[in-house]
Amino acid sequence: MRTIGALIFPGFELLDLFGPMEMFGFLGDDYELHLIAEREGAVESGHKLSAMASLSIHEHCAFDILFVPGGKGTRREVENQALLDWLVAASKNAEFVLSVCTGSALLARAGLLDGRHATTNKAAFSWVESQGPRVLWERQARWVEDEHFITSSGVSAGMDMSLGAIARMHGMQRAKDVAKFCEYEWHQDPSWDPFAKIHGLV
Amino acid sequence: MRTIGALIFPGFELLDLFGPMEMFGFLGDDYELHLIAEREGAVESGHKLSAMASLSIHEHCAFDILFVPGGKGTRREVENQALLDWLVAASKNAEFVLSVCTGSALLARAGLLDGRHATTNKAAFSWVESQGPRVLWERQARWVEDEHFITSSGVSAGMDMSLGAIARMHGMQRAKDVAKFCEYEWHQDPSWDPFAKIHGLV
Repeated sequence: MRTIGALIFPGFELLDLFGPMEMFGFLGDDYELHLIAEREGAVESGHKLSAMASLSIHEHCAFDILFVPGGKGTRREVENQALLDWLVAASKNAEFVLSVCTGSALLARAGLLDGRHATTNKAAFSWVESQGPRVLWERQARWVEDEHFITSSGVSAGMDMSLGAIARMHGMQRAKDVAKFCEYEWHQDPSWDPFAKIHGLV
Repeated sequence: MRTIGALIFPGFELLDLFGPMEMFGFLGDDYELHLIAEREGAVESGHKLSAMASLSIHEHCAFDILFVPGGKGTRREVENQALLDWLVAASKNAEFVLSVCTGSALLARAGLLDGRHATTNKAAFSWVESQGPRVLWERQARWVEDEHFITSSGVSAGMDMSLGAIARMHGMQRAKDVAKFCEYEWHQDPSWDPFAKIHGLV
């Protein structure tokens, strides 16, 4: 059984988080999902609806998969040293570290992506880029894998990336089965990214 | 400004709910989103992670848009007469009634879809069909619009349906803008449904 620790913070992006959690959730008893935040309890998303963190970063930092969503709250959290320190500690324990959208800005500010290939939201690219000048940012990619760090493009890209991660961990058939039950048309090619052009990055 | 009342219940499906809420949330100040349940407070989804209901069905039933997700909890809630009565009352007040996945089983059991065209999850089609023998169930459809009732296929179909609803309410450009910022490849055609065949329905 694998555990996932999904970080949430005020202003996290709903679909960044819950799209991937839906995909991993369909793996059933093989996974235990947790939402973790600075404090246990309700955490308000960028679209106001709240999710419940059942764990606090002050008490837990060992998960098999560390998951970091984006959202407008990342603009504040890149200055949150306690959170960045936790990301460093939790990354050391994790078999995989996954981020969606501007979640990669947090990993970058924690120094975790230095010298690594990574991507992020295409509408906020220059801001995220500025958070990690030593990161090898990829302007056109649905998601990017660099060893155990897997970063995705904006919002809905997290679902494609998660299925890619599931394929890597459990085989292609398992990922296809999850996509089928979610009635989701999976973009299997990590280089598929029409949004880089739409947002003027290429 | 429009209000959305999104019903949640134990065992709701994460992406059924939060995919659409992400899309409507991107409309910004034009929309106020609410999660509503039998009781205010944390409600556990089918994949265990919990969302916070800020309103109770015993106190509120007037929203411009009534939204009903699916999930394994619907198997229990179809027997919950208080909830079905609330759906009838809330539907009368609503300009639009939207459901995703097996959420249409709840609308069907409340009698709201009798004589109407509707669709649902393709992996649970026969069970949902049995909940509404007088509903005109469509076996192959991403989503179905019958006046102000809009029902979608399973899980990820809710995002396509929501963008379709946004296009109907606010024009095609607004829907395309939301899809762009979510980096989401919208299936604009409500008859697009490869999953009907994959699940052996056609």
